[in-house]
Amino acid sequence: MEVTIVGAGLVGCLLACFLARRGHQVTLYERRPDPRPAGAERGRSINLAISERGIDALRRLGLDGEVLKAAIPMPGRMMHALDGELTFQPYSADRGQAINSIGRAELNRILLAAAALPGVRVRFEHRLTGLDERTGELRFGSGGTARARVVIGADGAYSAVRSRLRALPGVGFSQEYLDYGYKELTIPPRDGAYAMEPGALHIWPRGRAMMIALPNPDRSFTCTLFWPHEDLAALDTPQRVRARFAAQYPDAFQLMPGLVEDYQANPVGHLVTMRCTPWHVTTGEVTVGLIGDAAHAIVPFYGQGANCGFEDCVELDRCLDETGDDFAAALALFERRKTDTDVIARLALENFVEMRDKVGSRLFLAGKRLEHALERALPGRYASRYELVSFSTTPYSEVERRVARQRRWVAAAGLAAALLAAGLARTARRR
Amino acid sequence: MEVTIVGAGLVGCLLACFLARRGHQVTLYERRPDPRPAGAERGRSINLAISERGIDALRRLGLDGEVLKAAIPMPGRMMHALDGELTFQPYSADRGQAINSIGRAELNRILLAAAALPGVRVRFEHRLTGLDERTGELRFGSGGTARARVVIGADGAYSAVRSRLRALPGVGFSQEYLDYGYKELTIPPRDGAYAMEPGALHIWPRGRAMMIALPNPDRSFTCTLFWPHEDLAALDTPQRVRARFAAQYPDAFQLMPGLVEDYQANPVGHLVTMRCTPWHVTTGEVTVGLIGDAAHAIVPFYGQGANCGFEDCVELDRCLDETGDDFAAALALFERRKTDTDVIARLALENFVEMRDKVGSRLFLAGKRLEHALERALPGRYASRYELVSFSTTPYSEVERRVARQRRWVAAAGLAAALLAAGLARTARRR
Repeated sequence: MEVTIVGAGLVGCLLACFLARRGHQVTLYERRPDPRPAGAERGRSINLAISERGIDALRRLGLDGEVLKAAIPMPGRMMHALDGELTFQPYSADRGQAINSIGRAELNRILLAAAALPGVRVRFEHRLTGLDERTGELRFGSGGTARARVVIGADGAYSAVRSRLRALPGVGFSQEYLDYGYKELTIPPRDGAYAMEPGALHIWPRGRAMMIALPNPDRSFTCTLFWPHEDLAALDTPQRVRARFAAQYPDAFQLMPGLVEDYQANPVGHLVTMRCTPWHVTTGEVTVGLIGDAAHAIVPFYGQGANCGFEDCVELDRCLDETGDDFAAALALFERRKTDTDVIARLALENFVEMRDKVGSRLFLAGKRLEHALERALPGRYASRYELVSFSTTPYSEVERRVARQRRWVAAAGLAAALLAAGLARTARRR
Repeated sequence: MEVTIVGAGLVGCLLACFLARRGHQVTLYERRPDPRPAGAERGRSINLAISERGIDALRRLGLDGEVLKAAIPMPGRMMHALDGELTFQPYSADRGQAINSIGRAELNRILLAAAALPGVRVRFEHRLTGLDERTGELRFGSGGTARARVVIGADGAYSAVRSRLRALPGVGFSQEYLDYGYKELTIPPRDGAYAMEPGALHIWPRGRAMMIALPNPDRSFTCTLFWPHEDLAALDTPQRVRARFAAQYPDAFQLMPGLVEDYQANPVGHLVTMRCTPWHVTTGEVTVGLIGDAAHAIVPFYGQGANCGFEDCVELDRCLDETGDDFAAALALFERRKTDTDVIARLALENFVEMRDKVGSRLFLAGKRLEHALERALPGRYASRYELVSFSTTPYSEVERRVARQRRWVAAAGLAAALLAAGLARTARRR
């Protein structure tokens, strides 16, 4: 079968690998030029944290080793308090699990190389400008056209394929922006070494704002501010930039010699959640579908955007198994995944509040320690939500059901313990 | 001030009248040709039910008399049971209040004539194809261009002005379709007279589907089916159309000689709720805003789409009062109306369930009678939600607060009565 994928980003490339393995002929159309000769675009994207769902997808294609070799494991969060105090919170009870920091550009280069297979063609500098879902005709900014029976949009949060679907009657759609923007900054190596602990995702929780930093193999850290738009816009002079960082992020400020230049040069990104339903339309012999961010863009606060997109590829591969490679039927079946992507979209929004506000509180830290104690006491029976999302491939919706069940058990056990204690106290008084 | 309004439909024309009265120069651009010489498009839109909010807006411009003269008052609902039994439910406790049936095309002609004022120009056959919110440049399908500092999109549910706003970062948007379509049919006059009671909105509630009919001055009724899409598509032969109507709508079927031709010729409409936030963007000296369905398209089941759009004009007029005709400030202030339009969007969705399902039940009818009894017993103190929405200009969000307060009182009074009765019974037993 000939399949057209729009977008040769992370999900587009991985999907091409899965489809080529099934014996399909794949053409990838990508708006941008080939990133491999030109080098990375800087200041454009948050570092990624690849965890079990992403690794599982890569493992199925034998790509996990190469990707993990280019990544830095982060077994926990390092909180930076205003007074400089550092607190390390392991992500898992046994401290053995890690999420893995990797730059988007580097990961994309690895996946583009992996997709250089006999059945796969990549056409760079082909920006989709028109799509007819009835005839399967694609038009590109260059003036070229193509035709396909199966078109899969893996073209990200601002998907051009989805723009066409969205215009059809009956297609539901929503875009919700946070009032927050993000901006990338850098902590360079100090004397050739990492300036902070490299084995952690660093967080500066500051209530309504925060900064995070992820390690890079070149011993720098990529920092990302998540600030209200008005706060980002307010720092309009070098003095104001320095004053704010000196006051709010004093330890990081010492490590950022290029702060003012980075702040002024780097653009402000937007944080959006996009929802669309259905994800596919079949008209006669032509099927157009969506996958990854094009189907369900989420905010980055659970570190699951790319992991979820990679898991989409595994699920679509499974749907092709179940339908004998009938793409119209497989993309219809793939709609079942919306139950899971709706959950992670919500969790990602909720985790922003946790990261920027709660992780700094003693009560939250005590709760995390209790959770890890339960995990150690009941291995395989009790697992935290973070652990299930990041270190398992349990479907997101099943994670939510399991977390709800666990909470009921813990509440019931707590109640039983309280009643028992009250009974013992009464017995003791009677004696 | 020169103001450009995109869309010369109901809300665009009414807004032009309000703005001209304030001394502004208004240009209206309308995609369609002038509807007055050509006659009405048929089969394209549901009849409207103008009620107090719409009448109040028209009254402020002295247009209420002319509009009501062209309309048929409907003081209640007439339910058609499957066995032919008819039940009339008045809309108000004193039966003195009515909603008013009028065709969209007829109302548009009246408002276009009203907008023929010295300060108002109307440009028909000008389809907006491009808008630059920074320069205020408008481009039209004909190739023409224009420039404006204030552009207000009154161009309906599929607004071209909103398309431009929606593409800006930070603008939230959603479109939600029901799985239902609508189709227009006709009950012609019988022997020159109305074939059914003209003083009612007729409803055939059928559980998951329904039909309604509104009277026209020419003694016909415009009927609208609201059916699941699959049911509409299933009637693909004249036999199936006749069989379904004979079985489900037997009394109406007798009155529809052109049923099969209407069913096959008339298109299926879609039912969508559109939300957008913010409704306006100001860039330098240019302000682009939205009003009416362009800002908040709702489903038709509360009969409030046009009424709400007309009330928008009153509110924007008030915002211009409060800001001394500073359009950027007035459109910013106008965002406060979203609290109200969000409420009516939700009520309209909820009322679909009431109309197609609950209005047929005895329990529902008993509840309505109780409600009207309370209204008569406590005039000015107790009013039903329907009465407040349709026969007052109480803001929609205040209606919801008042209904919630009333329910708490009634529940408390019911509880007090039950306790009193129990106490009396106990006292009686003791004697």
